[in-house]
Amino acid sequence: MVKVCVNGYGVIGKRCVSAILKQNDMKLVGISDVSADWRIKMAVRKGIPIYAAIPERVEEMKKAGVEVAGSLEDLLKQVDVVIDCTPAKVGARNKELYVKLGVKGIFQGGEKHEVAGTSFVAQCNYEESLGKAFTRVVSCNTTALCRVLGAIHKRYGVRKVRVVIVRRAVDVWESGRTGIMNTVVPEIGVSHHAPDVKTVIHDLDIVSMAAKGAHNLFHLHFAILEPKVKLSKDEVITALREEPRIALVRGADGVDGLHSIFEIGRDTERPRGDIYEIPVWEDGVMVIGEEVYLMWATPNESNVVPENVDAVRALTETTLDWRESVAQTDEALGITKNLY
Amino acid sequence: MVKVCVNGYGVIGKRCVSAILKQNDMKLVGISDVSADWRIKMAVRKGIPIYAAIPERVEEMKKAGVEVAGSLEDLLKQVDVVIDCTPAKVGARNKELYVKLGVKGIFQGGEKHEVAGTSFVAQCNYEESLGKAFTRVVSCNTTALCRVLGAIHKRYGVRKVRVVIVRRAVDVWESGRTGIMNTVVPEIGVSHHAPDVKTVIHDLDIVSMAAKGAHNLFHLHFAILEPKVKLSKDEVITALREEPRIALVRGADGVDGLHSIFEIGRDTERPRGDIYEIPVWEDGVMVIGEEVYLMWATPNESNVVPENVDAVRALTETTLDWRESVAQTDEALGITKNLY
Amino acid sequence: MVKVCVNGYGVIGKRCVSAILKQNDMKLVGISDVSADWRIKMAVRKGIPIYAAIPERVEEMKKAGVEVAGSLEDLLKQVDVVIDCTPAKVGARNKELYVKLGVKGIFQGGEKHEVAGTSFVAQCNYEESLGKAFTRVVSCNTTALCRVLGAIHKRYGVRKVRVVIVRRAVDVWESGRTGIMNTVVPEIGVSHHAPDVKTVIHDLDIVSMAAKGAHNLFHLHFAILEPKVKLSKDEVITALREEPRIALVRGADGVDGLHSIFEIGRDTERPRGDIYEIPVWEDGVMVIGEEVYLMWATPNESNVVPENVDAVRALTETTLDWRESVAQTDEALGITKNLY
Amino acid sequence: MVKVCVNGYGVIGKRCVSAILKQNDMKLVGISDVSADWRIKMAVRKGIPIYAAIPERVEEMKKAGVEVAGSLEDLLKQVDVVIDCTPAKVGARNKELYVKLGVKGIFQGGEKHEVAGTSFVAQCNYEESLGKAFTRVVSCNTTALCRVLGAIHKRYGVRKVRVVIVRRAVDVWESGRTGIMNTVVPEIGVSHHAPDVKTVIHDLDIVSMAAKGAHNLFHLHFAILEPKVKLSKDEVITALREEPRIALVRGADGVDGLHSIFEIGRDTERPRGDIYEIPVWEDGVMVIGEEVYLMWATPNESNVVPENVDAVRALTETTLDWRESVAQTDEALGITKNLY
Repeated sequence: MVKVCVNGYGVIGKRCVSAILKQNDMKLVGISDVSADWRIKMAVRKGIPIYAAIPERVEEMKKAGVEVAGSLEDLLKQVDVVIDCTPAKVGARNKELYVKLGVKGIFQGGEKHEVAGTSFVAQCNYEESLGKAFTRVVSCNTTALCRVLGAIHKRYGVRKVRVVIVRRAVDVWESGRTGIMNTVVPEIGVSHHAPDVKTVIHDLDIVSMAAKGAHNLFHLHFAILEPKVKLSKDEVITALREEPRIALVRGADGVDGLHSIFEIGRDTERPRGDIYEIPVWEDGVMVIGEEVYLMWATPNESNVVPENVDAVRALTETTLDWRESVAQTDEALGITKNLY
Repeated sequence: MVKVCVNGYGVIGKRCVSAILKQNDMKLVGISDVSADWRIKMAVRKGIPIYAAIPERVEEMKKAGVEVAGSLEDLLKQVDVVIDCTPAKVGARNKELYVKLGVKGIFQGGEKHEVAGTSFVAQCNYEESLGKAFTRVVSCNTTALCRVLGAIHKRYGVRKVRVVIVRRAVDVWESGRTGIMNTVVPEIGVSHHAPDVKTVIHDLDIVSMAAKGAHNLFHLHFAILEPKVKLSKDEVITALREEPRIALVRGADGVDGLHSIFEIGRDTERPRGDIYEIPVWEDGVMVIGEEVYLMWATPNESNVVPENVDAVRALTETTLDWRESVAQTDEALGITKNLY
Repeated sequence: MVKVCVNGYGVIGKRCVSAILKQNDMKLVGISDVSADWRIKMAVRKGIPIYAAIPERVEEMKKAGVEVAGSLEDLLKQVDVVIDCTPAKVGARNKELYVKLGVKGIFQGGEKHEVAGTSFVAQCNYEESLGKAFTRVVSCNTTALCRVLGAIHKRYGVRKVRVVIVRRAVDVWESGRTGIMNTVVPEIGVSHHAPDVKTVIHDLDIVSMAAKGAHNLFHLHFAILEPKVKLSKDEVITALREEPRIALVRGADGVDGLHSIFEIGRDTERPRGDIYEIPVWEDGVMVIGEEVYLMWATPNESNVVPENVDAVRALTETTLDWRESVAQTDEALGITKNLY
Repeated sequence: MVKVCVNGYGVIGKRCVSAILKQNDMKLVGISDVSADWRIKMAVRKGIPIYAAIPERVEEMKKAGVEVAGSLEDLLKQVDVVIDCTPAKVGARNKELYVKLGVKGIFQGGEKHEVAGTSFVAQCNYEESLGKAFTRVVSCNTTALCRVLGAIHKRYGVRKVRVVIVRRAVDVWESGRTGIMNTVVPEIGVSHHAPDVKTVIHDLDIVSMAAKGAHNLFHLHFAILEPKVKLSKDEVITALREEPRIALVRGADGVDGLHSIFEIGRDTERPRGDIYEIPVWEDGVMVIGEEVYLMWATPNESNVVPENVDAVRALTETTLDWRESVAQTDEALGITKNLY
């Protein structure tokens, strides 16, 4: 049993907690956070031991009725691996403490590649993280790009790929305080996603552009690939069908857009209605000349959750074969090739 | 075991199905629908027997891979009660068939009061539906108004109440095809909610106004009450705390708006993140002079679900005391007085 | 000719500039701002002399190609009245400079009543500001409440009024950086609008509640009044029709919501499509028992613009009679009783 | 003086009316419509003669206080050219009448190319429509694509171009009745824009994908071009700068997204705040390897308005040289190369 803790009980952190609790080779020792509001009280109700990430927060957390089991350092001393889900840049500052206490650590995509030295998408480069002290689960967007583009690249090779991403603007929980309204906001210049993909799939010629859309759930990706060999539409679909953590959906089945994916997620009756798979539109796959066109949804809150679970196994060498870890995680979380 | 079927597997119908499956005094025989898209396929995956609501749809449903167990009439012949969750006005047309086959029926708030003759909110007027052939679970908005205003009215009497409702514009599943954008659309004149409340709480002096807001989840209600006796803020809060299916939330705990309610719902890890309770802002309760001011969220997709379960018991006289039925339903669904 | 400058070229400031330029008894000497982006460049194109509100900004403004005519102090020395349209709280800090230089000043609703000592809605209390050194044009919401409620109050007396406001969340220009998404965010407690109305209509019994809606243009107001005498619907409509700066619109004419008001504004072909009037739904006027129900739109960016013009006349005693000033402003700006 | 009428006083029609009124070589004889609501009353206020597009509507229009000058046929008999701005597909049905009465006609992008036989973007293929009976001004999206891509193509040749469009979901005026909410809805398959561009720029290798975004104003376009010769960033910018009806904007100037374009439009103080130009982000121009990356906003309500004006001149051969017509239109409408 690998002993695990989660530092930061936010959008990703709370989902990692739920996922770790379902793994039979891992034990969740506790979580660490700074919050004293309804969010942390949800964790209290679930009986999860709570530690204060910052000593200064202990008093306010206690005042809010949260029983504080100790400090982050207290928590870290009890675990083999910490999943760091603190806000971007904070993870980098936490690293020193992890090193000091000899705890292995998993960072999220908000941190730079250099913080961990290795980036991680289970089905693409699991072995690179085997036995390492640190790895970084890349962002939701990068994870989706790696899974989908990687499915073609590993089978046939991709000469180049161009991507446009329509991002959700902010997360749901904060969308009463921050957001965008009735607009689309482009990222001026090349978006960071393309270089980020190369931290996982090192030899891919990829350029990406992105814009924030006026919605708060899920990203929509468009990709134009030139595979190294001419592919038929069937070959592309088969590649996607064979690849883990990709699920084909169809406009012809009434899956019209991101809202449909959201409703499907809820109808799975999984916790929080989470979708861990990348839903790719099967009838959106087009082959025109030498090019392959793809469009998919990226479930931004949850698709990296199984990656975090796998990363625990890779760092601790609990499982050496990525296929084995992915299969184990997918069974525990109910990940499927067919969402409906 | 009361044998139940659900006619119409939409927003309300699918939730009623999930809820009926959790009751130990009811058996779900099957569902009836006309859909052949991803929505009905979700039911197929859950192993629910599916009947065709309209003979003309059988072929298309089969073509889409849905195994059709028979017609609506076939289904109705096997049940004691049908929960009719078909679109507004369709229920009224279905009634004839229910009468013909001697099946008791529960309609939703989209139908007029006259279709059933009795309207229903469990904690307000359960006994009115005892043994009846038909009843009508009122709409999400009316249910919320009855629960919250009824909590004060039954304890102290309410001289009059004025309500403003900011409604969600459309349901999530359809919000890629229909909706409103960057506007607020008032209902010109008195909204239908006030008269609808009187079908349940017959002696309440209530007027309501309403507008559609540019969001697709949950309604926000503002109410100004004149109770028959002067109440303190504490008395109001206590009344709400004692009443079933109302849950107090606090802005001071970071519950900022409808999005917070949505996130809390997901964090409960209930199916679909559903909230069955009416979240009332405790720190939004104000007493100014003789008047009481309240603000609450109405979880439009799910708050009527427990009412449908209770209505089954009322029609069949399985349980004669409303408190008993409500307690049984609430335990089965995990309904709570404290969401966090 | 009253010499006027505008300090702060934002949402309100730029509209005041356009309005002042249309008055034949006023001269716009210049504006003062800190911006160096496209917004100030629009002013450059219009040939408006630009002064730097803060010395530290001069360099960056010049670098951006903005010809800076001098400092705020330089500008103030040339004028009789400054319209302060700087962000909330900044006006209060500016006051000292205005006092020192002996310039009369008009603040906006973002400042507290105490900063000016007098608050202002032309058709309600013009005379209170006559000859004063400072006055405060109240916020868009308060201005709308004063105009509409004042129309009934001055004719018949209003015993009490209860108001619910569905506010736009943020202004258009900033809605790519800030906003709310797919939610409604209530203000917990009594909203500030009711006490603010009393700074203008001192004897009104008013309570208000408010929420931010997921839209960025215009507020929607609901009001429930108890007039001192029972009024007919016709009497209410006549009062609104006789009152300046209120325009009746009808749902029956296809004016469905805030978006219709916005489209009407653009179709007026006024600068920026601005609406200075308060559009009240004529078919939304209801009389139920002793109560009058009203619903209207508040054009948040522009309805205070004519007030600022009138306030210049009041402070400088250019015009002593409010009716005269309002008529003059309304003619210059094309303000009408019938928007279509 | 070319005598012109506009059939259909909607989003495009009303803007064409305003534009025609500003041309000194054209006379607006009247408009034809079916509406009896506030929209047509705006035209009444402007003193525009109104004809009934359908006899059945005369009575209701009169009842609404609209003075009806006659039938569509009456109107057509007085003009040389009709600008048909009726809803998609209706124009095709109207053509027969235009042919019968010998009136030249301009259709909009909602009609198929075949209806007119010739499609039109002034700066791309003006001469193709010279003297023709009919032409079709292509849609806002196609017009934008033709202007921007055409600027590079006519100077250097474009080997191929791939486009992704994030569309506004519906028009403002109707966004209280229809729209999408908190989602992105992809068009499954190749979007219609690419083939439509080829009706104007016949030899362009172009593929496009599109999605509806949750906003109601302006489209955002991303394009990836392979020019026939390697271009520098400066060469691309110069090409755009030299081309009419394209205006460069900069993120560095605070032009963050579509909302900024909208605010700039209003600040121009043009009627309705209309933007006729295509705002292309200058700092969004990237050259990576052989490819050129571009991003721009498409002002969906207004960018085709100058095209309609030019199309009148082309059909009637009033002006033979496209440059002359474009210059004349641009001066009349205040079209500029620098929006700020």
